Amino acid sequence: MKFPKTYTLKEISKLIDSKFIGDENFSIYGMNEIHVVENGDIVFVDHPKYYDKALTSAASVILINKKVACPEGKALLISDDPFRDFCKLATHFKPFRTADKSISELAKIGENTIIQPNVFIGNHVTIGENCTIHPNVVIYDGCSIGNNVIIHAGTILGADAFYYKNRPEGLDRLISCGSVSIEDHVEIGANCTIDRGVTGLTTIKEGTKIDNLVQIAHDTIIGKKCLIAAHVAIAGCSVLEDEVTIWGQVGISSGITIGRKATVNAQSGVGRDLEGGKAYFGSPCDEARKKYREMAAIKVLPEIIAKINNI
Amino acid sequence: MKFPKTYTLKEISKLIDSKFIGDENFSIYGMNEIHVVENGDIVFVDHPKYYDKALTSAASVILINKKVACPEGKALLISDDPFRDFCKLATHFKPFRTADKSISELAKIGENTIIQPNVFIGNHVTIGENCTIHPNVVIYDGCSIGNNVIIHAGTILGADAFYYKNRPEGLDRLISCGSVSIEDHVEIGANCTIDRGVTGLTTIKEGTKIDNLVQIAHDTIIGKKCLIAAHVAIAGCSVLEDEVTIWGQVGISSGITIGRKATVNAQSGVGRDLEGGKAYFGSPCDEARKKYREMAAIKVLPEIIAKINNI
Amino acid sequence: MKFPKTYTLKEISKLIDSKFIGDENFSIYGMNEIHVVENGDIVFVDHPKYYDKALTSAASVILINKKVACPEGKALLISDDPFRDFCKLATHFKPFRTADKSISELAKIGENTIIQPNVFIGNHVTIGENCTIHPNVVIYDGCSIGNNVIIHAGTILGADAFYYKNRPEGLDRLISCGSVSIEDHVEIGANCTIDRGVTGLTTIKEGTKIDNLVQIAHDTIIGKKCLIAAHVAIAGCSVLEDEVTIWGQVGISSGITIGRKATVNAQSGVGRDLEGGKAYFGSPCDEARKKYREMAAIKVLPEIIAKINNI
Repeated sequence: MKFPKTYTLKEISKLIDSKFIGDENFSIYGMNEIHVVENGDIVFVDHPKYYDKALTSAASVILINKKVACPEGKALLISDDPFRDFCKLATHFKPFRTADKSISELAKIGENTIIQPNVFIGNHVTIGENCTIHPNVVIYDGCSIGNNVIIHAGTILGADAFYYKNRPEGLDRLISCGSVSIEDHVEIGANCTIDRGVTGLTTIKEGTKIDNLVQIAHDTIIGKKCLIAAHVAIAGCSVLEDEVTIWGQVGISSGITIGRKATVNAQSGVGRDLEGGKAYFGSPCDEARKKYREMAAIKVLPEIIAKINNI
Repeated sequence: MKFPKTYTLKEISKLIDSKFIGDENFSIYGMNEIHVVENGDIVFVDHPKYYDKALTSAASVILINKKVACPEGKALLISDDPFRDFCKLATHFKPFRTADKSISELAKIGENTIIQPNVFIGNHVTIGENCTIHPNVVIYDGCSIGNNVIIHAGTILGADAFYYKNRPEGLDRLISCGSVSIEDHVEIGANCTIDRGVTGLTTIKEGTKIDNLVQIAHDTIIGKKCLIAAHVAIAGCSVLEDEVTIWGQVGISSGITIGRKATVNAQSGVGRDLEGGKAYFGSPCDEARKKYREMAAIKVLPEIIAKINNI
Repeated sequence: MKFPKTYTLKEISKLIDSKFIGDENFSIYGMNEIHVVENGDIVFVDHPKYYDKALTSAASVILINKKVACPEGKALLISDDPFRDFCKLATHFKPFRTADKSISELAKIGENTIIQPNVFIGNHVTIGENCTIHPNVVIYDGCSIGNNVIIHAGTILGADAFYYKNRPEGLDRLISCGSVSIEDHVEIGANCTIDRGVTGLTTIKEGTKIDNLVQIAHDTIIGKKCLIAAHVAIAGCSVLEDEVTIWGQVGISSGITIGRKATVNAQSGVGRDLEGGKAYFGSPCDEARKKYREMAAIKVLPEIIAKINNI
């Protein structure tokens, strides 16, 4: 997430009431999670295990809970609770605004786009031309939708990421300040849920088609011309490359990459990266031909065991 | 789908700007996909593999991308792109109309039927007597609902079939002109999705009860007095005969028939026709008693392998 | 479910037109299903198999289809159809009222609670302070929500239990007169469904966080600080103790107890009680370490079988 203007290190440190190490006029352009952080951004880290990763990332400013040596050309924000202060910044830069009507006056809707009844369109949403938004769709603040997009009834774009820090006093939500980007010619079925990114974008690329009741979590990127069947659940920060086909009720763990033109058969569970161009099956999944061989073996297993017990 | 009146071969050929073979006054009553086509209908075919099936089907008119010999008593429409022209006809006969209010004036709603707030009811929807339509339900144009039906909140009836032709330039949607038929005494849970047929009906027969978050795809027929538990996904063109019980999170592939009084246990995957009167389990499923024997065998497999490695 | 005032045995017998055994002034305070019945309540039983259980339960009044000996200090209501008469009482005491607006005037909504557009809030709903109810949420009559609760768009609270009696003439719905209780600091994702209890409460306890498209059935109790990922389906009358973690697409059967701090891995199926503090996997699930050993064994099974066939 980029800030609306450039801030100085001093200004940001004031917002979160923290100390800082570095030039007080050091320029800051935005804030992001570690996996999407860019030059000029703040990143946060609160566990020693990840200090090095954060300090050597593309981030220019590290919001950290220990006074460490400041890397050359960077700055530090020293906080007793970087998670809390990251959320404070997210809330400051993307405050939640109560809607006073179903379709915000701050939304931009392109020509020839049809908005059916009972649709909610939040502030700063942009929708392109020739789209059809069917009844009872909900588009939270800030989501962007391209041209020639169809979204069927009851689908929800831009709900918060399911991302919590486990504290002794309870589960503490990371405030989502990212968004959702739906590109041209995407079609989404009924009652789907596509969450916003924590700081970046959840992206559905051009020409992808999604069936009903599909869940796509925060920061996930779905490539071009993918086909995703009903009841699929894709966890956060995963990447589907172009022309991937995912059949019904498949589950995909977080942080997974599925290669171009891979096919995942129905009810499979994907717990590791998958090479493109192949078919997969099973929970956890493997190459389909391996899995089918295992299944054939299981079918004869009871008689094999009977044989062995007779030896 | 039947046309509102009888058309001649010449009139239809003009609508799609195609050539034809046969009597220009040949009567045409409707259009349908191959699996539901009837006498008097147009069917389309664009792959040589299916030419014979289409030409010998019940269809009276074949929309085809090759000049073939016209079967006795039939007619041909010759097109360079039958899929595109079938969609053109679907759009012509069932054009999408933007709604100007949540409940269409063209809908018919029976006596003693309760429509709760924020419900969308499209054009030409019919709902019988003594029904309860809970809040935020969406019923797309043309769906029909019998008497004594309960539909819980957030359920979507009549979204488009998930059916695409893979073209070099992208996935091309088959325009759905079918509908949904919900018979008497059916009860449907919350946030379900029941898609319309491509040209025919998706049908839920009398007395069937469906739990929450269930997906039923285009052209599927659910028999009488079936029980379908939460999170079930049933793909297109499948048939459940009467009194079938489907437990939670089961997935059923397209084109499957499940026999009368069959039971499919939770989380199973149905990839082939199932005989009635039996219980099934597993993904892919088999008769439950076989599957449970296999599972017992798997439990002892690690020690069996250890034994074998010791021989 | 407690009655709004105390009734006598005679008054209740009149409402359902039944005979009774016991003092006509015997006090009755409510009615409940067998698993949540309390002193002063009516319970119903219509199968000889369960007569003893009902007669020796905490219930003070047994609605039963046989003249049996009345236990000391209790009373009987004799009916030819206890299920029908229990439903009659449920309908009498909790009649369905058609809503005349999206937000009932009989609902109580706390300070600083945000209700976004297109939300339905039924009669006698109570919502605490500092809550955010996102667009198109539906909260049926009588549900109660604590403080600092977030409910994302499209989620449905309080739809009817999926609970039917199989009669020769069709599936007969047990009328739900229970409710839903969401405690403080609970967060629920988008397009979830949480059904009301049949006579008691479906409860989500303090600090629990639920992702999108989750189904929680009637009378289920989710403990404190649980994490439930997307597409999970939990059947009726189950209990999750505190701090349980359920990963995506897990299914849990009815009447199950899952112990404190247990973790159930993605796509597992839980068909029996699970001890706390452990990780589980598989469908049906077992302890994860056992299951992973079985899976490793299956991977080598084809070559083992080849070996054996060579002996």
